[in-house]
Amino acid sequence: MTRQETTQVIIVGAGFAGITAARELSKRGVDVVVLEARDRVGGRVWTQKRDGYWVDVGGQWTGPGQDHIRALGDEMGVKSFPTWPDGEHLQYTEGAGLRRYAGVVPSDDVETLGKVMQAIMAFDQLSQDVPLHAPWETPNAQSLDGMTVQTWIDENVDSERAREGMRTAFEAVYAAEPHDISLLHALFYAKSGKGLFYLVSTEEGAQADRFDGGMQTVAELAAERLGDAVWLASPVRSIEQDNGSITASGDEFAVTGKICVVTAPPALAGRIDYDPPMPPLRDQLTSRAPMGSVIKVHAIYDTPWWRDEGLSGRVVSDVGPIKVMFDNSPPEGTPGMLMGFIEGGDGRRYANIDEAERRKAALDCFVRYFGDRAAKPMDYIEGNWPAEQWSRGCYGAVFPAGTWVSCGQALREPVGRIHWAGTETSEVFAGYIDGAVRSGERVVNEVLEVLG
Amino acid sequence: MTRQETTQVIIVGAGFAGITAARELSKRGVDVVVLEARDRVGGRVWTQKRDGYWVDVGGQWTGPGQDHIRALGDEMGVKSFPTWPDGEHLQYTEGAGLRRYAGVVPSDDVETLGKVMQAIMAFDQLSQDVPLHAPWETPNAQSLDGMTVQTWIDENVDSERAREGMRTAFEAVYAAEPHDISLLHALFYAKSGKGLFYLVSTEEGAQADRFDGGMQTVAELAAERLGDAVWLASPVRSIEQDNGSITASGDEFAVTGKICVVTAPPALAGRIDYDPPMPPLRDQLTSRAPMGSVIKVHAIYDTPWWRDEGLSGRVVSDVGPIKVMFDNSPPEGTPGMLMGFIEGGDGRRYANIDEAERRKAALDCFVRYFGDRAAKPMDYIEGNWPAEQWSRGCYGAVFPAGTWVSCGQALREPVGRIHWAGTETSEVFAGYIDGAVRSGERVVNEVLEVLG
Repeated sequence: MTRQETTQVIIVGAGFAGITAARELSKRGVDVVVLEARDRVGGRVWTQKRDGYWVDVGGQWTGPGQDHIRALGDEMGVKSFPTWPDGEHLQYTEGAGLRRYAGVVPSDDVETLGKVMQAIMAFDQLSQDVPLHAPWETPNAQSLDGMTVQTWIDENVDSERAREGMRTAFEAVYAAEPHDISLLHALFYAKSGKGLFYLVSTEEGAQADRFDGGMQTVAELAAERLGDAVWLASPVRSIEQDNGSITASGDEFAVTGKICVVTAPPALAGRIDYDPPMPPLRDQLTSRAPMGSVIKVHAIYDTPWWRDEGLSGRVVSDVGPIKVMFDNSPPEGTPGMLMGFIEGGDGRRYANIDEAERRKAALDCFVRYFGDRAAKPMDYIEGNWPAEQWSRGCYGAVFPAGTWVSCGQALREPVGRIHWAGTETSEVFAGYIDGAVRSGERVVNEVLEVLG
Repeated sequence: MTRQETTQVIIVGAGFAGITAARELSKRGVDVVVLEARDRVGGRVWTQKRDGYWVDVGGQWTGPGQDHIRALGDEMGVKSFPTWPDGEHLQYTEGAGLRRYAGVVPSDDVETLGKVMQAIMAFDQLSQDVPLHAPWETPNAQSLDGMTVQTWIDENVDSERAREGMRTAFEAVYAAEPHDISLLHALFYAKSGKGLFYLVSTEEGAQADRFDGGMQTVAELAAERLGDAVWLASPVRSIEQDNGSITASGDEFAVTGKICVVTAPPALAGRIDYDPPMPPLRDQLTSRAPMGSVIKVHAIYDTPWWRDEGLSGRVVSDVGPIKVMFDNSPPEGTPGMLMGFIEGGDGRRYANIDEAERRKAALDCFVRYFGDRAAKPMDYIEGNWPAEQWSRGCYGAVFPAGTWVSCGQALREPVGRIHWAGTETSEVFAGYIDGAVRSGERVVNEVLEVLG
């Protein structure tokens, strides 16, 4: 049986963009239906609950300036707390093994540290010319978009150790490898997020704070207020529009409205069957906007014992598959949680193997950095984002060379009755939860203008 | 009503890959059903028939070494004939206007000619190291795939006029712009097609010969012999597989078999809803394999009057939207036909406007090169490939930087009961009709091995 319904605005996706759009429209008396493919809200934010503790297997952080997600968290009454700050960080290199360090960037030799900082500053300087509303209008856009980040690193960083440091930084921020990323896209993304230095920073940076109870709590509380306007387990297969209306259909439903807001990332939005078909430029965009690849793994221990050894739980390593780690314990400190990222090429490779094998590879890394005590966690919990059918990667879309100048204009341009949201469409904090919220707010303005 | 059917092998797509696979399997007594989205066979090959003449609005050429499509044409009894060879070619440049020339590459100044030839030779030399079965195993693959063709041109061609010549050559061969194309992909594609010099050549090159009556005639005759095994107007929306069987379903049908061969190009294959979902590496591949962008326009005149002026009908120009032209008249010479390509960025832009506006822009170019007589054709016929729902571009997929090393391994690797064909999967003449035929033959070997 097909469930038929009529509304004013159909919203595809109940991540932070979709929920924000639905909330803001509802507040203004506009009737909405939110169609979510998964059996939960939150999208790339997902808090898994266990007996006595919770784990954010998806997006979790906020930082200074991310005022839109912070305001939403405040409104929902969810408290934030700082990422665990104390102790020394670890650097692991193939050549030198383990060393302790302090600060944002590992400093095992002062020359490499200087070169990495210089490269980050040069990169952030270069990004200043990107107009966030239209990166394709950057002076020299074709040259910047016709070059990968790898080419830029090779041309601008003159020691192999500093190049390795920059590669690790880019992998951590973009969940992709330098050869995958357009230089123009990397510049846009960095400027959109207050600069590469901010994005790799914890204190005063993009990894500053977390929400108690998990980031998804915010989405769940916001969605609760929308009541039965949110339809879970309802993947949209096709969207049909004509002069009078627009209909989004799935296996067992069809919802008709005046406007449809699609919040899925471009790659997934491109898989919906549109009638009439998407215009060529939009179609080209969605066929060249792959998602980053990241697997986020947690090992749970009865206590955060590494703190007693003077360690912060943070690691930067040039040996994978886990190259970046954090202490991801709850604010009360127990249970203790070590969290690590498998990113870029490793993310793609490890996404496709058995969980048991991946768990072993991850814990081998944990032991390499923290010793044998890390080998036997009481629990292991992961978010394997490349394998998630309704995200196919995280953190966000990573545009390869050529995408922005060839078809970037199609990113936000409405197609008839279809408007686009989602963190990829945000000018500010694109790729971050804050960008998703902002994109929901922006699309509401577009929709209200059309509804008149 | 859903039409249900059972077969041994389901083939998705009735282009040259699908038809070849179906023919070869049928010959061996294997039962097949070919599911084609369009109401015609041929895929990116499409001959439009008018009262008294025919026009190839899609793929049309064969060249020396393209023995597999040539053998198929022979078997179907379709005669080939050479691309019109006589007369002088035209070069148009913004600086110097129109000049006549002979040979493959315009030679208005000998230094530029020398530099372009040198660059083509250096490129073809570099391509020799690419193992066609596994481009990601090329020595230095990560560096070559982490670089765009634009970066290579900028670093290896030292005059602006020669760089412009190389850009035009790449646009003509790849239907994409140098900033869109991975250097490794360009090298693979060129080597797969006997080298860049062969690919830009007419006589003794990839544009040497045509089929009388149009290239699609070959596909139609081959499909006729398959009888009602070919289902037209049957787009596959989903493919479901388990340990015992595989089912491809559309709006009003469901076909169950042992094996499914998907011949759609990666970008379109990625839009099918798979259950279970595609593995991460395959999914990443299909989200970063955009199609080239080309619109092929024909103006039809009562006679090929340019021949009387000593002109071959061929043009190379640095001013768009039409930068490359050919005399595309039938072998008998009447009616006369001038054909031009709108490619790359122009292809994307012009694909999205009204046909009347595009026709005007195209004929303005024809007049610029051939004078006022070109302004009033008796007919205008075009193939707007970026707008074609079931191709979304031509000639083939153009991998951006990073695709081959990040996920190229997933291009041909079967996923359970699904095997992949289509010209993009061919080691030889990838992107060409000959490659499509070869891919159909290759996949038949895979299928027969599984069927046992």
